[in-house]
Amino acid sequence: MEGNPVHRVSAGDAWSSSMHPDIESERHSQSFNVEELTNILDGGAQNTALRRKVESIIHSEPELSLKDNYFMTQNERYEAAIKKKFHILMLAQRLGWSEGSSELQYASRSVSGDLGFAIHHIFQKTIRSLGSEEQIAKWDPLCSKFQILGTYAQTELGHGTYLQGLETEATYDAATQEFVVHSPTMTAIKWWPGDLGRSATHALVQAQLICSGARQGMHAFIVPIRSLDDHSPLPGITIGDIGPKMDFEHTDNGFLKLDHVRIPRENMLNRFAQVLPDGTYVKLGVPKSNYLSMVVVRVDILLGEVLPLLQKACTIAVRYAVIRRQSRLRPSDPEAKVLDYQTQQQKLFPPLAMAYAFHFVANNLLEFFHHSYSFILDGDFALLPELHALSAGLKAMLSDFCTQGVEQCRRACGGHGYSKLSGLPSLLTRVTASCTYEGENTVLYLQTARFLIKSYLNTQKSPGSASKGSLPQSVAYLTAPDLARCPAQTAADFLQPELYTTAWAHVAVRLIKDSVHHLQTLRQAGADEHDAWNQTTVIHVQATKAARPEDSRLRTGEPTRVLQQLPAAGRQERHLVAHHLHCMGGVGVILPPPFHSVHHRGAACCVQCTIGTGEGTPLLCHCEDFHRSSGETGKPASDSPDMARKAYLDLLPFIRKDAILLTDAFDFTDQCLNSALGCYDGHAYERLFQWAQKSPTNTEGNPAYEKYIRPLLQGRRARL
Amino acid sequence: MEGNPVHRVSAGDAWSSSMHPDIESERHSQSFNVEELTNILDGGAQNTALRRKVESIIHSEPELSLKDNYFMTQNERYEAAIKKKFHILMLAQRLGWSEGSSELQYASRSVSGDLGFAIHHIFQKTIRSLGSEEQIAKWDPLCSKFQILGTYAQTELGHGTYLQGLETEATYDAATQEFVVHSPTMTAIKWWPGDLGRSATHALVQAQLICSGARQGMHAFIVPIRSLDDHSPLPGITIGDIGPKMDFEHTDNGFLKLDHVRIPRENMLNRFAQVLPDGTYVKLGVPKSNYLSMVVVRVDILLGEVLPLLQKACTIAVRYAVIRRQSRLRPSDPEAKVLDYQTQQQKLFPPLAMAYAFHFVANNLLEFFHHSYSFILDGDFALLPELHALSAGLKAMLSDFCTQGVEQCRRACGGHGYSKLSGLPSLLTRVTASCTYEGENTVLYLQTARFLIKSYLNTQKSPGSASKGSLPQSVAYLTAPDLARCPAQTAADFLQPELYTTAWAHVAVRLIKDSVHHLQTLRQAGADEHDAWNQTTVIHVQATKAARPEDSRLRTGEPTRVLQQLPAAGRQERHLVAHHLHCMGGVGVILPPPFHSVHHRGAACCVQCTIGTGEGTPLLCHCEDFHRSSGETGKPASDSPDMARKAYLDLLPFIRKDAILLTDAFDFTDQCLNSALGCYDGHAYERLFQWAQKSPTNTEGNPAYEKYIRPLLQGRRARL
Repeated sequence: MEGNPVHRVSAGDAWSSSMHPDIESERHSQSFNVEELTNILDGGAQNTALRRKVESIIHSEPELSLKDNYFMTQNERYEAAIKKKFHILMLAQRLGWSEGSSELQYASRSVSGDLGFAIHHIFQKTIRSLGSEEQIAKWDPLCSKFQILGTYAQTELGHGTYLQGLETEATYDAATQEFVVHSPTMTAIKWWPGDLGRSATHALVQAQLICSGARQGMHAFIVPIRSLDDHSPLPGITIGDIGPKMDFEHTDNGFLKLDHVRIPRENMLNRFAQVLPDGTYVKLGVPKSNYLSMVVVRVDILLGEVLPLLQKACTIAVRYAVIRRQSRLRPSDPEAKVLDYQTQQQKLFPPLAMAYAFHFVANNLLEFFHHSYSFILDGDFALLPELHALSAGLKAMLSDFCTQGVEQCRRACGGHGYSKLSGLPSLLTRVTASCTYEGENTVLYLQTARFLIKSYLNTQKSPGSASKGSLPQSVAYLTAPDLARCPAQTAADFLQPELYTTAWAHVAVRLIKDSVHHLQTLRQAGADEHDAWNQTTVIHVQATKAARPEDSRLRTGEPTRVLQQLPAAGRQERHLVAHHLHCMGGVGVILPPPFHSVHHRGAACCVQCTIGTGEGTPLLCHCEDFHRSSGETGKPASDSPDMARKAYLDLLPFIRKDAILLTDAFDFTDQCLNSALGCYDGHAYERLFQWAQKSPTNTEGNPAYEKYIRPLLQGRRARL
Repeated sequence: MEGNPVHRVSAGDAWSSSMHPDIESERHSQSFNVEELTNILDGGAQNTALRRKVESIIHSEPELSLKDNYFMTQNERYEAAIKKKFHILMLAQRLGWSEGSSELQYASRSVSGDLGFAIHHIFQKTIRSLGSEEQIAKWDPLCSKFQILGTYAQTELGHGTYLQGLETEATYDAATQEFVVHSPTMTAIKWWPGDLGRSATHALVQAQLICSGARQGMHAFIVPIRSLDDHSPLPGITIGDIGPKMDFEHTDNGFLKLDHVRIPRENMLNRFAQVLPDGTYVKLGVPKSNYLSMVVVRVDILLGEVLPLLQKACTIAVRYAVIRRQSRLRPSDPEAKVLDYQTQQQKLFPPLAMAYAFHFVANNLLEFFHHSYSFILDGDFALLPELHALSAGLKAMLSDFCTQGVEQCRRACGGHGYSKLSGLPSLLTRVTASCTYEGENTVLYLQTARFLIKSYLNTQKSPGSASKGSLPQSVAYLTAPDLARCPAQTAADFLQPELYTTAWAHVAVRLIKDSVHHLQTLRQAGADEHDAWNQTTVIHVQATKAARPEDSRLRTGEPTRVLQQLPAAGRQERHLVAHHLHCMGGVGVILPPPFHSVHHRGAACCVQCTIGTGEGTPLLCHCEDFHRSSGETGKPASDSPDMARKAYLDLLPFIRKDAILLTDAFDFTDQCLNSALGCYDGHAYERLFQWAQKSPTNTEGNPAYEKYIRPLLQGRRARL
């Protein structure tokens, strides 16, 4: 027991000096060292130390406090976010935190990303991805010094994920060597870009390039939109904020209508394509290169925007569940902690296990991204399809699960989870956006499905075929031999990584085969390829959710040994960019031995939790398949689901024991959690009561009394 | 085609006079008469006419408009809701709308229930349920005339659904013939009651009765809390608003701390128990009678608060899905309506089918409630356990499904579904509260589980046993004989109500048996009854979700005939208070023949949609069970899931054809929908653009520019 670490305690709360006994007792018996686990999550003890140093600086600045967030209007949230960003930039200047430094990343985490100009950084990154060296040399320093403020304007009122449908036009005028950027219809108005509504001076506009009369598809153009003198909209620009949203109130998502706005030829980003002065179009890259900026953003948001929200929700809900007591397990007992109820454990532990799993999955994706990105920038696009499919599929899956998990945590807190003061409503309304932005999830699943089907068909080619060798490593499992029967003999077998790895691989292949089969059946029945595709999309999405690209060596029969060897393998060999269930098995790679059992259970929980959901169905059905096809008669087939369920239920008490420690290890400060329910000391009720007093509903008077309530009560309404 | 009915058109929109061609074309080929279906939903053409008359009155009053709701702060929402309530009461006085009249109900629907004093009516209803005739005579007129404003104060900071845990005490003082009502701890503070924060003058306080030194459990006490002269808190009362919430901003949920507040002996509601002047406690009813007021509220909210939110979400999402075009089904086509994509149909049609199913389920529950309520008020509690179990289970199931359905509709609208102007975020944040209030759903499922298990054990008694005959009608299916094999031979069989009725009954019984088996196994292994219960609760919840009380005659082999005969049967015979899947089969009861095929498809869709979810798992597994146990070898067992899926996918195009008509039939006015995306005329983009201009983010200036953005852009930050 390490006492009451200073970095975890809310400043200024009288009760923070004491721990609620019901949470303190949870921290007495440590089956592992929380600090070590924190260090692993941070990627090393030195990172933990640096993060805490930054947090203590941030939390000591009153301008950077989140505490009044829940009481603010949209306008106030926006102003506060700009103020915070401004102050952090000042701090960075004073303390020498460089652009892109860990310090700035930790600073952003400390204020829950509640900062203005988030899209400015995407604007800048996109210029680095799609701009020529000259363009980068010109624009990048302006961005870094905030001499301009950028936004990335892709989505339109009428089109989002389907890039080709965007209507904004950029027509080249060779006479003046300018592009004329224009919104030809109401639906062509740019809609949603962040920082556009009230902040940005420049927009990176995605538009259909038209030169020499030919349409050349989507390209990116730098368009000045507001005066650098007085911030007024420039001629031809109609601009504003899109109004209230479910969350992201700190961001000024905006609209932009362009009326024949002229920009110089040099403002088209031209790393991969350019227009010569005479209007000749020259292509320098593959058509897909425009997708690159979307991939960049997708990878970033998983670690920065999506996963921390699930981790926070778990922390809040698990802490509240040990200080909330309700009902009695037996009549003679005192009221029980709600976390001691099996149904509560079922609600909270699967999201908790996923919060760990996804951490490693997302980091692995980031690694693969960095690796492939360097090739792509050099013009080698070989890895782009795989990177695109992986980032699309993982973005969809992680955002779906994180959203489900946060809502499950929120509901597990009962009524108090509905109070904004719990922090949970904001986590939910924010994370759920990630299912839509940067690629709507169903569309992303279908993009991954096309990749999987293509890869599978590739495996069906004749052995000698040249192209067969090019099957991307992450889907090498598609060639694994069929398994004759389910290897599980007892409930305990369902906790073995090798078993569920094998089972999921089998299910994935079976479902992809099934997808292909349905597609081919419809084709043979006379449907054209497009009808056939549309009529099987529900099946494809189902298959894609079950499938996961993975390292094929993990099914060699010696997974543990392989896992342990992985860190020593080469960089490209370590692409554990994999389905989360699988990756949980891979956690053992990174964790030292004391954590193996903890994470082994987490992994198993992650798998087992899917029993009650659609995700789990294929696994169970598949186990039944195994039994049926094995031809054995001794064991009734229906045992498998029962065994799997028993394995799952038996796991819960083990995770129960470590639950508080596992959430402590995320090491969120109370200020960053900003939750009356979830503080480290467990004093939820005192804080709810105190925070509520400060609400404008209590401090601003009640004009409705004199106007309506008093006349009503005193029977004077007839005279009004 | 009935043109452009006046009652459906937004007033004042320039574009409302024309229809968007993409929505107009959907209304050309009518496979049924929308107006007739609306009449059925309303319970008769005369109701439809009355509702529309009220709506036109309400919508002509500017004070009752919802249009600025999305721009308001919590304080403004509260004041607006009180204002609306006040104006509706004035209208009612002027137009002679009596208390509890259809007119007032329709008026409330017209403004989406966005009214103050909602809990005042629960206060009043509870007095009618739990008060003596004298108490009703005294308090009821005061409520009706709004000479007092009441709230119902049950939930505390530390306790919600578990009534016995409530800590507030009412100690009888025989010397003064008063009760001393007191909050002994911080966690005893009443927390959440609506209308409490800033409005109510009286609270119905649920408190532990202590008289003559003995604790007598929870009773209800009328406690004056604010002065009728100046609305100030009375002595001993600490009171306020609990602050920002995920939604329900129009309601002033409040807190109440009682410091030895004295009230007269007559203020304890004493229909079922009373305290004599000398402190003698006299019980006049069963201990469960206190639960009655919760049952009353639960039944009300399903029809008033929960179901309309799903119906609105479906209307908005389906309308948007026919004017939104994205991507192409084949390269030569124009962009397709998103509703033509199979994946979009899969998102929207199951919620749409449920929106119909639940309408009839909830109305049937209401009927059963009225029937049993009259007995209960007369002191005959025989039907209370069944009513409690039914209302608890249906409240949990409907609120869960409606919440899932609304979120599915919201996400199906992509980015625009995240804008509050779409109306969808508010529908979601409001409906999700229903999973928690008036009984947390997991707790409710477990209460129903106890009833099911008890009923099942009752079926296991020896045939001659006296108590066996008392098995409640709604669970009579527990005695149905086991089925040897799945009756489905083809995909089409999965569309037959008799098949899925049979299949679900079998699954329900199997799962309840399974629950009982696990419970008994643990007991035999030495666990005490309480441990055994807790360790099987996850299984019980699963069983309860699959089980549904129903009319056993629906499985006589002639369901269609039976269904058609039902309306002619006696009142008690018609308790189709049943699981939603089952009830969809029952829709045919109420609808005339032209609608049979529409609703038959809806019913089947409702069943089939569960394939992809946990709910569907038992059905599929169970079909596999059938095949296995049949001993046949010809047909591979894995055909059943494939057939079921095929049946489901084949249904989608049929529902696609009628989708707009099915949402039109809900007959929500544009003003009531209050959605930029979902108006009747289909002009979503124009409205989004126009509504956004009015947002405070565009009308209130941008102080952040001078303070932060300008200094940053102009490099003056170093000097600040």
